Amino acid sequence: MYQIDLNCDLGESFGAYTLGNDAAILDYVTSANIACGFHAGDPTVMKKTVELALEKEVKIGAHPGLPDLVGFGRRNMAIAPEDAKNIVIYQLGALQAFTKALGGQVEHVKPHGALYNMAAKDARLAEAIAEAVYAVDPSLVLYGLAGSELITAGKRIGLQTANEVFADRTYQQDGSLTPRTQPHAMIETDEEAVRQVMIMVKEGHVQTQQQTNFALDAHTVCIHGDGAHALTFAKYIHETLTNNQIDVTAYR
Amino acid sequence: MYQIDLNCDLGESFGAYTLGNDAAILDYVTSANIACGFHAGDPTVMKKTVELALEKEVKIGAHPGLPDLVGFGRRNMAIAPEDAKNIVIYQLGALQAFTKALGGQVEHVKPHGALYNMAAKDARLAEAIAEAVYAVDPSLVLYGLAGSELITAGKRIGLQTANEVFADRTYQQDGSLTPRTQPHAMIETDEEAVRQVMIMVKEGHVQTQQQTNFALDAHTVCIHGDGAHALTFAKYIHETLTNNQIDVTAYR
Amino acid sequence: MYQIDLNCDLGESFGAYTLGNDAAILDYVTSANIACGFHAGDPTVMKKTVELALEKEVKIGAHPGLPDLVGFGRRNMAIAPEDAKNIVIYQLGALQAFTKALGGQVEHVKPHGALYNMAAKDARLAEAIAEAVYAVDPSLVLYGLAGSELITAGKRIGLQTANEVFADRTYQQDGSLTPRTQPHAMIETDEEAVRQVMIMVKEGHVQTQQQTNFALDAHTVCIHGDGAHALTFAKYIHETLTNNQIDVTAYR
Amino acid sequence: MYQIDLNCDLGESFGAYTLGNDAAILDYVTSANIACGFHAGDPTVMKKTVELALEKEVKIGAHPGLPDLVGFGRRNMAIAPEDAKNIVIYQLGALQAFTKALGGQVEHVKPHGALYNMAAKDARLAEAIAEAVYAVDPSLVLYGLAGSELITAGKRIGLQTANEVFADRTYQQDGSLTPRTQPHAMIETDEEAVRQVMIMVKEGHVQTQQQTNFALDAHTVCIHGDGAHALTFAKYIHETLTNNQIDVTAYR
Repeated sequence: MYQIDLNCDLGESFGAYTLGNDAAILDYVTSANIACGFHAGDPTVMKKTVELALEKEVKIGAHPGLPDLVGFGRRNMAIAPEDAKNIVIYQLGALQAFTKALGGQVEHVKPHGALYNMAAKDARLAEAIAEAVYAVDPSLVLYGLAGSELITAGKRIGLQTANEVFADRTYQQDGSLTPRTQPHAMIETDEEAVRQVMIMVKEGHVQTQQQTNFALDAHTVCIHGDGAHALTFAKYIHETLTNNQIDVTAYR
Repeated sequence: MYQIDLNCDLGESFGAYTLGNDAAILDYVTSANIACGFHAGDPTVMKKTVELALEKEVKIGAHPGLPDLVGFGRRNMAIAPEDAKNIVIYQLGALQAFTKALGGQVEHVKPHGALYNMAAKDARLAEAIAEAVYAVDPSLVLYGLAGSELITAGKRIGLQTANEVFADRTYQQDGSLTPRTQPHAMIETDEEAVRQVMIMVKEGHVQTQQQTNFALDAHTVCIHGDGAHALTFAKYIHETLTNNQIDVTAYR
Repeated sequence: MYQIDLNCDLGESFGAYTLGNDAAILDYVTSANIACGFHAGDPTVMKKTVELALEKEVKIGAHPGLPDLVGFGRRNMAIAPEDAKNIVIYQLGALQAFTKALGGQVEHVKPHGALYNMAAKDARLAEAIAEAVYAVDPSLVLYGLAGSELITAGKRIGLQTANEVFADRTYQQDGSLTPRTQPHAMIETDEEAVRQVMIMVKEGHVQTQQQTNFALDAHTVCIHGDGAHALTFAKYIHETLTNNQIDVTAYR
Repeated sequence: MYQIDLNCDLGESFGAYTLGNDAAILDYVTSANIACGFHAGDPTVMKKTVELALEKEVKIGAHPGLPDLVGFGRRNMAIAPEDAKNIVIYQLGALQAFTKALGGQVEHVKPHGALYNMAAKDARLAEAIAEAVYAVDPSLVLYGLAGSELITAGKRIGLQTANEVFADRTYQQDGSLTPRTQPHAMIETDEEAVRQVMIMVKEGHVQTQQQTNFALDAHTVCIHGDGAHALTFAKYIHETLTNNQIDVTAYR
């Protein structure tokens, strides 16, 4: 039987600010990437999110971001690889303390936003992140964009890696995501989005905008946790995959 | 033979800002309380400080503070006990990740500044901090002001605790420190300061401003790491104690 | 004819986080207290909020808070009066630059949250805030709790002051608000809340929990901008006051 | 007689952290660029720095930076032009409030670090900064790298601009600074550095690394305020220029 992991960014509230619908979305995903306080999240939010994930038996991952709260970690930043390594160690450790305190454990790491995107293309940055994860716990799974430098760096250092794919983004001939600034970057309907995931999982490739097939070994799909539609889609993709002989289960 | 631990707050640099003389002071102290990014310190500073402490074989402790960088964690803040617990878990975990990555371990926790002072008197806050430390690792030693609520809370939950005393501060009849706003709060000469520590260690009490003796089981002395005089004093107290049959060694 | 100002805290969104329903609430209030980036708000949010207020012709005030974003400026903090003065100057100036850039002007200052509450009782802190406002622009109106130290300090230095009253809070015999930790601190129905305001405005006193009347010269009523009910109440109080011969107009 | 302005970045201390030797360096420079709290500086530091500059009768300028305290505003960041505009307005206004409160005025703006460097090459970012400055006060002088996009944008919008040159950096054939990553990027001796400035001022060009002359209208020289050598050099360049018929005076 086919398998796929559904992962979602969670714990992105901060102080008086609430973001996302964490409790509800946890019913449909199998891995939770929990914000660690740099781009979003605060210690009390982290604690509550870890509690929720443990209660719903969803795998817990660290979701470290750039130190840019006002930019939500989405703005590229010329961070030195050494500093990137240290911010990942720091944030990962902070989350581990909550899982230890609450009786669980961190099982994967997925960088957030601009850190994720930069590490997809920048080999030195990717290496720094992989080193950070490996140094803290070599049994952690590193989540990265399928085909990215981050996945390459993770494998090279000896980490287990998970190829992340996107349901609602189109792909280019070389396996990269169509930039959002270009037309047809987004897949508009839920049906199309889930269909793309099913093809990836069952056939091992994605149909590109150039009408070619790009081979892809999909391990995990990124599910959005925010926005009015997020919950509906999470439920829909979970059900549709399950009804189509695809086991929705955490990647290990 | 008598024993005493000398502890010092370290890793308080931040970004472009350098504070203290960490490498030099580590030659004379036996326990390092490393700032964890809230009141001082940043991930790269933490990494370097952990490296230094491991190299000098000084015991590593977490030094969590209030989220008040501009106030250096020295301003009292009406933080909810639940939030205090979570900021301690967070900062402790962050430091643990660096020790894990570098092959060492965190062995104690000493709250910083206003968090330390508030927890000396506020039983609920003290309890929250003790719970945080215990939940992350019950084998950690909790450092607190001798006779404080923090020590009481640490003992109650089952943590090993270390009574901290001060060389350069005078004491009141009830064992509290003379407030800095009062005359004779500070001990002015190095000789007097070390003499006070020797009496504490060898005789088990401190001579108070009221000319009484207050019984005190001194485990660790706070050594300042910043200021022109810090290094001179650290060297002086280390030598004088050693020459007076007091073994300067980490408290465990 | 009677007059009253309705003021509301606005511009409290931050980065990716949205709070409140600023555009809608501006239809019913006459003074907007705009967050200045310390407890809430960021430069881009400030710019948009100033634009909105100018468009709706609502008076603009600065709403400076403590440097405590994660605590939303609601936690008391032992800030030195000198530092309090400087954070008010800083935040006020930042907002003034947006009003200058967009063709308006800042006309009042209302401290936020814990800064407001501490300044109601702490004469030195109140004086520091009043000095800050006066030094930047002596024609600004200082908003404070009716009968508070802040109002006293503002008057003493020569500022025009606005007595703020609350629609949904009950009062004690001495004119203070019933602490939220006590029963009957809140007025539960909209009708009761507006009735209390009408009595204050028309009769110049408030009925206290001890069944006495406390004389009060009400200049402005605090309207909440956040929460599902906020908009409904803002509309209701605006209409009801207007229908009862009370002119809802900015205080000057 | 020839004229040149010597400008220096000041007010870069933060909370417990001291940086630079502001009081001493102010004796030798004619324009002070004061940090505004985003990359360095805090409200109390700003207040003290404005006081010092007024006392020494040095012209005051705002020195706005990226929101990156831990990186000291030196890391490039993909900030949207609209956000850049707003952070400049914000920081400029904050500084203006201190000058108003203390009886002075802000007379120029020089972006800091990565914001300065990015705005030298990115026309849209440069335009956003120029718009911010112009919107707040069109009489302000915009400082930028001679020949940069920032100078172009400032002129286009109608601001007076000041061409900044560097004493200790070598230049390329196209008038750009030799990147620090290349050999001979820095001028090693004080004598050489001052000689370069004198040629720029008196002859209107700089000798490039390619042995060509690049025409340059030098208005202001950047003097470093930090580091052991800073004060010595500031004194030396001030004296040498003065002794060579170059009047060291603020640019207006």
